[in-house]
Amino acid sequence: MKSVDRALYLLSFFTVQEPEWGLSELARRAKIDKATTLRILVALIRNGFVEQHSQTKKYRLGIAVLRLARVREASFPLLSFINPVLDRISEEMEETAHATLAADNAMITIAVTEPKRATRVWVNPSQLLPFHASASGLAFIAFAPPSVREEILESLDFERYTEHTIVEKAELRKQVEEIRHRGFAFSPGSFEVETSGVAAPIFSNSGEAFGAIAIAGVASRMTKEQQFKAAKLVVGASIEISRAIGAEPHPNIVAAKQEMEAV
Amino acid sequence: MKSVDRALYLLSFFTVQEPEWGLSELARRAKIDKATTLRILVALIRNGFVEQHSQTKKYRLGIAVLRLARVREASFPLLSFINPVLDRISEEMEETAHATLAADNAMITIAVTEPKRATRVWVNPSQLLPFHASASGLAFIAFAPPSVREEILESLDFERYTEHTIVEKAELRKQVEEIRHRGFAFSPGSFEVETSGVAAPIFSNSGEAFGAIAIAGVASRMTKEQQFKAAKLVVGASIEISRAIGAEPHPNIVAAKQEMEAV
Repeated sequence: MKSVDRALYLLSFFTVQEPEWGLSELARRAKIDKATTLRILVALIRNGFVEQHSQTKKYRLGIAVLRLARVREASFPLLSFINPVLDRISEEMEETAHATLAADNAMITIAVTEPKRATRVWVNPSQLLPFHASASGLAFIAFAPPSVREEILESLDFERYTEHTIVEKAELRKQVEEIRHRGFAFSPGSFEVETSGVAAPIFSNSGEAFGAIAIAGVASRMTKEQQFKAAKLVVGASIEISRAIGAEPHPNIVAAKQEMEAV
Repeated sequence: MKSVDRALYLLSFFTVQEPEWGLSELARRAKIDKATTLRILVALIRNGFVEQHSQTKKYRLGIAVLRLARVREASFPLLSFINPVLDRISEEMEETAHATLAADNAMITIAVTEPKRATRVWVNPSQLLPFHASASGLAFIAFAPPSVREEILESLDFERYTEHTIVEKAELRKQVEEIRHRGFAFSPGSFEVETSGVAAPIFSNSGEAFGAIAIAGVASRMTKEQQFKAAKLVVGASIEISRAIGAEPHPNIVAAKQEMEAV
């Protein structure tokens, strides 16, 4: 079954940042020899998972992935659970709420609800959120399977976006431990100075985090009180969404909710 | 590379109609022995393409497919090309316009635009359109790769939905030939008596049909004149969308457009 793993591994190289690959680059980056990479790509093309640009000869994801996503979404709708929750928490906070899925090198936004007020955080749905510089990324890493967490920690570039960005592995480890204990993540201006994020992970039915729910507020109005309110909302949303898709949220998240409700 | 093909083949069994499979059923239907099927499923699960229901032990598509679809859509947006075209042709026709992708046993709706009038055709986005009983399905079959066309023709159940449904293979073959020649498909009440559809295929960059663009009108107002107008619009839309995604539409479609414009 090694070749199945390799094929799915090759698919993981196609990202929003690097959607097209030449054969040599892909083989080099995946550390698979060129002949094998080509054979896998041909099988992926034959089944519609990859297509080749007729001029540049570069490879990109094919239409079959859209079909699978439609089937998954029609039968086990994630967005239809997530969207009403985002609408509700955005309205309660009067700030932007958004949901992300973890990809290999960043979080991908899958849904956004903006508040109806003049100043608001705009989340570009095609923008990737860096793991180390967003509340969503931190919440995901904290509750990701340990092997995924280690892989991310080892491969992170720790790019500095603002003066608040965590740029050291030891510091990130410390924060991730705190988040894991606390159940949710804060990110005060670590990606954009004017934006303050609060996020909680969402869990798949295998019990592992696969994404996050976040509130991204205008930093100047995210007081301690507002942060607490946001934390309560995202933790509640995390539990609700995880359960709606047949998953049990992590005990620390459930405990966090109870503690916050007791305040 | 055989196991890669098998893995992708197994994924194709997950459909809107049959989103969950037990191991034995899946192995039987795919004609792959149970041990191999299980090994492939385990690899698919390990990579997030499939997940297993914790209670029923049944398998379903996993969250990785949503990530791939997001990457494909963010980098080579299909819906962002299709939606404005649907809006435009729906407005011009004052009828419902929709786009579908071909799946293994039917067409899946990926986008719908409804007209602003009291009576309109409602296309349920999670409803599958049968190949033999919808304009979209007929348009797709007519321009699908020959091997796909034969497979569909051989596996169709020819279920009768209305008195206009094509229920014989020979008749379907004849119509498909005509559609291939003409460039677009008509489906006067063959799925629902009150709905009349006109569709043209859309092409991937490998030059093969992968879906269709259709106008679904209230049958009583779809006069010959309106059908002609709809045909002109869907053929134009087919060419526009195919080219926008880097594909060349079939020569018969281009010829159809020129002929209709000359009328």
